[in-house]
Parts: sequence; structure tokens; C-alpha cells
Amino acid sequence: MSFKKITKEDIEHFQTILDTRYVMTDTEHLERCSGDHTEDLRYLPEIVLQPGTTAEVSTIMAYCNQQLIPVTARGAGTGLSGGALPVYGGVVLDMKRFNKILYVDKRNFQVTTEPGVITQELQEHLKAEGLFYPPDPASKGSCFIGGNVSENSGGPRAVKYGVVKDYVLNIELVLPDGNIIWTGANVLKNATGYNLTQLIVGSEGTLGIITKIVLRLIPAVKHDLTLLVPFRSAFEACAAVNAIFLGGYTPSALEFMERDALEWSMKFTQSTGVHLPEDIAAHLLIEVDGNHMDELYRDAEAISEIVQKFDIGEVLFADSAEQKNMLWTLRRKVGEAVKSNSIYKEEDTVVPRAELPELLQIIKRIGAEYGFQSVCYGHAGDGNLHVNIVKGTMSDEDWNGKLTLGIRELFKEVVRLGGTISGEHGIGLVQKEYMDIAFNDTQTMLMKQIKHVFDRNGILNPGKLFVGA
Amino acid sequence: MSFKKITKEDIEHFQTILDTRYVMTDTEHLERCSGDHTEDLRYLPEIVLQPGTTAEVSTIMAYCNQQLIPVTARGAGTGLSGGALPVYGGVVLDMKRFNKILYVDKRNFQVTTEPGVITQELQEHLKAEGLFYPPDPASKGSCFIGGNVSENSGGPRAVKYGVVKDYVLNIELVLPDGNIIWTGANVLKNATGYNLTQLIVGSEGTLGIITKIVLRLIPAVKHDLTLLVPFRSAFEACAAVNAIFLGGYTPSALEFMERDALEWSMKFTQSTGVHLPEDIAAHLLIEVDGNHMDELYRDAEAISEIVQKFDIGEVLFADSAEQKNMLWTLRRKVGEAVKSNSIYKEEDTVVPRAELPELLQIIKRIGAEYGFQSVCYGHAGDGNLHVNIVKGTMSDEDWNGKLTLGIRELFKEVVRLGGTISGEHGIGLVQKEYMDIAFNDTQTMLMKQIKHVFDRNGILNPGKLFVGA
Repeated sequence: MSFKKITKEDIEHFQTILDTRYVMTDTEHLERCSGDHTEDLRYLPEIVLQPGTTAEVSTIMAYCNQQLIPVTARGAGTGLSGGALPVYGGVVLDMKRFNKILYVDKRNFQVTTEPGVITQELQEHLKAEGLFYPPDPASKGSCFIGGNVSENSGGPRAVKYGVVKDYVLNIELVLPDGNIIWTGANVLKNATGYNLTQLIVGSEGTLGIITKIVLRLIPAVKHDLTLLVPFRSAFEACAAVNAIFLGGYTPSALEFMERDALEWSMKFTQSTGVHLPEDIAAHLLIEVDGNHMDELYRDAEAISEIVQKFDIGEVLFADSAEQKNMLWTLRRKVGEAVKSNSIYKEEDTVVPRAELPELLQIIKRIGAEYGFQSVCYGHAGDGNLHVNIVKGTMSDEDWNGKLTLGIRELFKEVVRLGGTISGEHGIGLVQKEYMDIAFNDTQTMLMKQIKHVFDRNGILNPGKLFVGA
Repeated sequence: MSFKKITKEDIEHFQTILDTRYVMTDTEHLERCSGDHTEDLRYLPEIVLQPGTTAEVSTIMAYCNQQLIPVTARGAGTGLSGGALPVYGGVVLDMKRFNKILYVDKRNFQVTTEPGVITQELQEHLKAEGLFYPPDPASKGSCFIGGNVSENSGGPRAVKYGVVKDYVLNIELVLPDGNIIWTGANVLKNATGYNLTQLIVGSEGTLGIITKIVLRLIPAVKHDLTLLVPFRSAFEACAAVNAIFLGGYTPSALEFMERDALEWSMKFTQSTGVHLPEDIAAHLLIEVDGNHMDELYRDAEAISEIVQKFDIGEVLFADSAEQKNMLWTLRRKVGEAVKSNSIYKEEDTVVPRAELPELLQIIKRIGAEYGFQSVCYGHAGDGNLHVNIVKGTMSDEDWNGKLTLGIRELFKEVVRLGGTISGEHGIGLVQKEYMDIAFNDTQTMLMKQIKHVFDRNGILNPGKLFVGA
């Protein structure tokens, strides 16, 4: 890629588009926008721009496209695949001023929002209106809804309610040439032309800049109930996941945590809420929800009976807000806890659900072979297992060399099982070297050509998704 | 478009790929493949080919691509927008031999099927295994699942369970150059590259030939219950739709039928099952489903109470198989009944659900202004209203001229309400002249360029989706 470096003239031009306080070149701002939550990677942008309107984004894009200046959109910087890293420098388009919920259409169960709204704040705003937007990534307290759309995020509730793509009806998108389009219509059914909306969801900022999002909503659910089930074998915990579904139950969350994940999270959050006997190898955290408490107790009892057939410890029923909050905080903090414990890489494997026990065995076998330790946890109900590989005492040479071969072998097995290399974190920067395992040359060429249709000059989030991009 | 006409040499070449009985040029077969269920349109292909394997499709495509012979894939020919019409002649690729359900993966709630399986047969096969594939277009007894995927079909149950796109995980696709790809992976969550799967769903055979489909399934639902609610005002019936959702209920079907629709269907099916007092203007057909009969009775009672606030006649509760079958047959036969009654055009309007009463008023106002009679019915729960415009005594001149202007005005209003010009029938041949109402030049150009990425020579289903295509 050959991009233009930003000059004094460019900066002055940006200052004609935005108020000078939104045109930032000071070290503090450049450094703030140099990283996200992916490992410890850092890439400095040359400038940070904070537009506040679609028209401003359009003007900036048209200029950068004409000048061949790379543009990387940034949400809250909580991504785990390096999607927001400005690897070629250039402009970081910091979307934090797009922070308004524009219109809650209660009659139609829809919301129109700007992309810089924090996901949890959006959810709480809607809940107060009796409406429910289910996708809730672990970072929901700080991530932006625009980032969630760009990465097609999931979260624990995907197992019952689906992922982000299942809620996006329509997107206002600024193309690199400054043109502004809506990708679809605000309707539940649409058979009108190609599905541009679903092409943008999960496209990681490589096709356009998202400036408005229309989401469909569902009625708020009144009650939920959480169970924590300890297993003496991690493989049995994975096997129990499928038994629950085959029993006819669809929990609203079905999370798996290896012992280390829970233990580290307890240490990290200084929690003593869960008793962790020495013989426990893993837990399932199971939530059921609905509008009638009696039905939830009935379902929880039935699920309890199903898991009793496995070698488990004492099931913890949580029905108070305090207990539920304690358990879910532990689950949500696993990622940060692992990060605080060691340098690590997180792989986002996903397979058809019933292949989970085999996947776990494969992970441990490859770990033994390539000499790495892993802590696994994730959305077992979706077959989506996060594999946190901890560096521990591994040499830098092995970490950067041999380990990569181990990850390749793991992803090959994932694909063999009918799965793929990212369930919800995206490809971004750090997984692109494995894309050839998921896609052959024909598939890759189609995707690259679609990229070219939207972004002829390749200025949008360059260096992502494709090797050589 | 400048395509090659099929020669004797081409026919001989096709006979080297397929057994001669699957290479058809006789009048009977050409005529059978010259139309679908769209008005009375007929376009003769030059040849009908019936491949039986993906490899055969690949070889045929590579040859046609090289020779510039147009190829139009054909399912069961039940489409309502002319998607299967070979408007430039050439090859009709008749997919009826792709009629095998390849693998029911009960452990993972998935099925892999060929595209030429009849939708209802697929559903019944799965039901026997305790599995449920919900999308059920009115033509389910004869349409193919491949056609459903190509048009992103819906049906009555979309209101609760979503449309075809919500169930397609992965597609085996033959590209025009003969390359064979899978579009995704067999997983519930996928953040790996652009969503090619959703790009193919609803692309109406213009991007590739679908040869295998992987669908996600849900556990079979045990019970359902149907209500028929007569309204003295059609507008009140539309308003009641939203009241039901705002009351917190999501029926598994919520269908609207104007009086004429039901009356004509009763006549067509020689049914006397429904008493139709003179003051009734429209009906809502409402289904609730679930695993506990007591809950269904409770929900049906609650819905009944909500609709009592409108000016309605006597509610008919149907809980016997016979009664339910009678009501649903009447609903499913409306389209055929209208067709048997007069020459007609069917518009597939869709708006945000709460805008339905306004849409119905607009349809009647425009009808009065442009002098056409309409019979409206459809999936009110999704805001998807089929507008059957009957020719009746309208002159051919008005039918082909003035009426088109009326439809344009209708679609403009639909888009103004946040809706679009097709909810589930697709654009195909007959709606392409209205695409400029739904999409501006930028959007259209993006779609045309995506088409070009897949089909450089434009041989796949030419003449569809875009004016001038």
C-alpha cells in the first residue's frame, strides 16, 4: 500500500471541516487511539478526527479518498482482533461524538441510533421503555454499538436471541467517495435487491463508515434465573451442553468456564462468592428467562435433572439480583483477568455445538504438542469457545514462531469440524494470517473484489482482513 | 445484452456432460420452463438442462460462461416476480433432480439439503425427527427450498420465527466460471470475513447456482391454536395487529384478509366453513404456538380480549386439526383464487408494522384515483401486505399505462413510510422498473458492481433485478 503522509496543508484542511478542537495531533490523543484490547499492539495514527455529523464524515472521506490518506474508524477501542488499529497511520476517525439515541419507535419495536452509543446504555434506555435489544458482548459497559455492528458481536444471549446481525435492519453508511447511502429499509422482511445491510454487518470498517443504525427490538423479558453447575470433567461439561438442547431446552445463556478462568476471575475481582472445591474442572453458567417465574423454575429444575446425569458438584441456583450479578460479573471479567495474569493471545473458535467436547480435546492435545497452556471459556451454547493462550514461561521465539503453527493446526481442526476461525471477535489484524484456512483463493478473491467495489483506493481500514491488504 | 444463440454444436456438447435424456429441446419441455406463477408471462428457453450433480452444474456453467450463453436456474416455478423466466432464452437449468435431503444433523439441529426438495416435504421429514424449519411460503406444497433461498421467502410464521435468511448457515454455490465455493460455515455465529451467505440469500439466481444448503433448525413445537377474528372495518383490523404486539404477544402467525380475499378463496375451494355476515370487511387469522396447551389457551384468551376493543364479529377458535386445516387452506389459496378470478398484478408491499393502517388507506386512495380495484391480504404481523390489483373491466391501455403510474405512486408512499417494494416475492423481472424508488444511483451502482464481481459476463439470469440488466 502506498498512502500519502498527512501534511500541514491536510491538517489545515481538516480544520476547515471540523472545529479545531476536534482535529487532534497531540501525543496524548494519538496514543489513546493507537491501541484497542487486542494483546498489547500499538500503532500510532497521524491525526485523530472527531466528526459529529454524517455530512462531516462525508466531507472528510471524500478528501481522504482523493488524497489517498488511510482512514480507520474507531469505536470504544474494545475490539479483540485489532480492527481499530491504524496500522498504516493516517486518520483515526474517532466516532465518540456520534453518541445520540435518535429515535425510539416503540410502536414498531425499532430504535435508530448513532454508532457511538455505549451498548449497555442503549440497552438500559430501551429497557425503561419496555423494549429489549439482546446482544450483549462482555464489554457491553464500555463498547459502542457501532463497533458491535462492525464486528457482528455476540455475547452470552446469542444462544437464544441471536447475534448483532439478527437485529440490524438498516444502516446509514458513508462510502469512501463521500456518498451517503442507506443499506436497506426499516422492515422485518426484505426481498428487494442484494442484502447490503448484511454485507456491512461484520465488515470491520473496511467498506464504509457507519453513521446511523436501525435495530429491531423485542418486548422486554420480565424474569430470569441463573444456575452455576460445577463439573469434575471439562469434557463432560461440554457434553452436557448438547444434552440440554436435545432435552428440548434453549437457555438464554449457556456459558462454559474452565477452572482457571473462574479462579483467575475470582482473584481479579477479589470475589469469594463461589466455593471452588479442588476436584472441579469446569463450570456451566446457565440462564433461563421468560415472563412467568413458575415456568422458569420448572425449566431450571428440568435442566438440573439433565446435568445430574453427569459427574457434577453442587448446583448453585441464583435468583436474587445480588447473586446473579456476582456470577455474571465473574463471567464477564474472565477476559480481563486472563490479561492481567500473563501476556496472552485469544482465539475465537466456533464449531457446530455438538462438536464442542471434541474441540476441547483437540485444543488440549495441540497445546501439549506445541507447549502452550490454554484457558478456555465462552459461549458453549453457540459452539463458540474462546481459547486464551497464556505466554507464561514460553520463550519469545516459540511465542512468535512455533505457537503460530499450533494455532494453524487448531484452526484447521476447527474448520474440519464444520466451524470457522472467528465466531464474534472478527478477523481484523491478528487473525488475517489464518484466513487461508477458512477460505480458498476463489472465496478470498470474491471478498477482495467486493472490498474494491466499495473502496476503490483501499483507504478504508487498510491492513485488515486480507493478507497483503 | 448480446448473447450467443444455442447451436447444434452446443447441444452436442451438453450431451457429453449429461445423459441425453437430461438435455431437452422439445416443445413440451421448453414450454413447461417458459413461465412461473407471475401473471401470464411466458419466455421460451432454447434448451432445458437437468443436471444431477454439482460437478455437472460446474461443467455446464464454465461452458456457458465461455460461450456467452445465458443461464437461468429454475426451481418449482412458483415465483411471483418472474425470477425463473428465461427472458433472453438460452439455458434453463432445471434443478428438479437436486431432490435429496443429504444429512439431518440432529445433534446440531442442522440439515444439509439439495435445492430441489419441496419445502413442505423437507419440513415434514424434519418434523418426524423432532425438528422444525419454520419458513412456509403459501406455495410450500410445491415450491423448492432452493427457490425459497433465492427469493428470501417468508410466509405466515415469519412474524415469530423470521424468514429464510434467518435459517441459512451455509450454501454450496457454483459460480459462472465453474468454480465451486461454500459461502460460510455450519455455525450459529460467524465473524470471519464478509457475509457471502447473506449476499446469496435473496439474490434471485443472479450471482451463482445454489447446489447445497445448510439450514439451522429449532426443536419442533408441540401445539398450536388458531383464531379467526372478523372486523367491520379493514382499517381497524390493521390497527388491531399493532395492539396485539404492544400488549406483549408475538403470535406465530398474524394474517390479514380483506373480505374479497376470503370470499373468493371460499368460492375457489368450494368451502362453506366460514360464516361471512354482510357487515364484515376483513379478518385477522391469528395463530399461537408453544409446548404447553394451557399457555396457548391463556395467550389466545388475552389476544381475544385485546381485539374485543375493536368493532368485531364473533371470534372463531380453532383447536381441532380439521378446523385449523380448513382456515389455513382458505388463507393459502387466496392467491390462486384471485388469479382464477381475473387477470391481476400482485404487489408485495412491506412497511414497519404500525404503518399498516395508513398503508391500507393509501392503497385505496390511489386505487380510486387511478381507477383500479385491489384485494389486499398478507402477513400483517410483519407489515407485509400483498396488494392484488385485478384487471376487471380496466382497458388494456390503462392496465399497461396509467396503472404503472399508480403503482409507482404506491411504492413511493411505501418507501416514505420506511418500507420497501418487496417483502418476500423478490424483484425478478416484473418489479425491476420500480427499483429506482427503493434505491438511488449509488446503491444501484454498488449492487450492479457486486453482480459484476460474481458474473463478469452477465450470463446468470440476465434481465432481472436491474433495468437494462
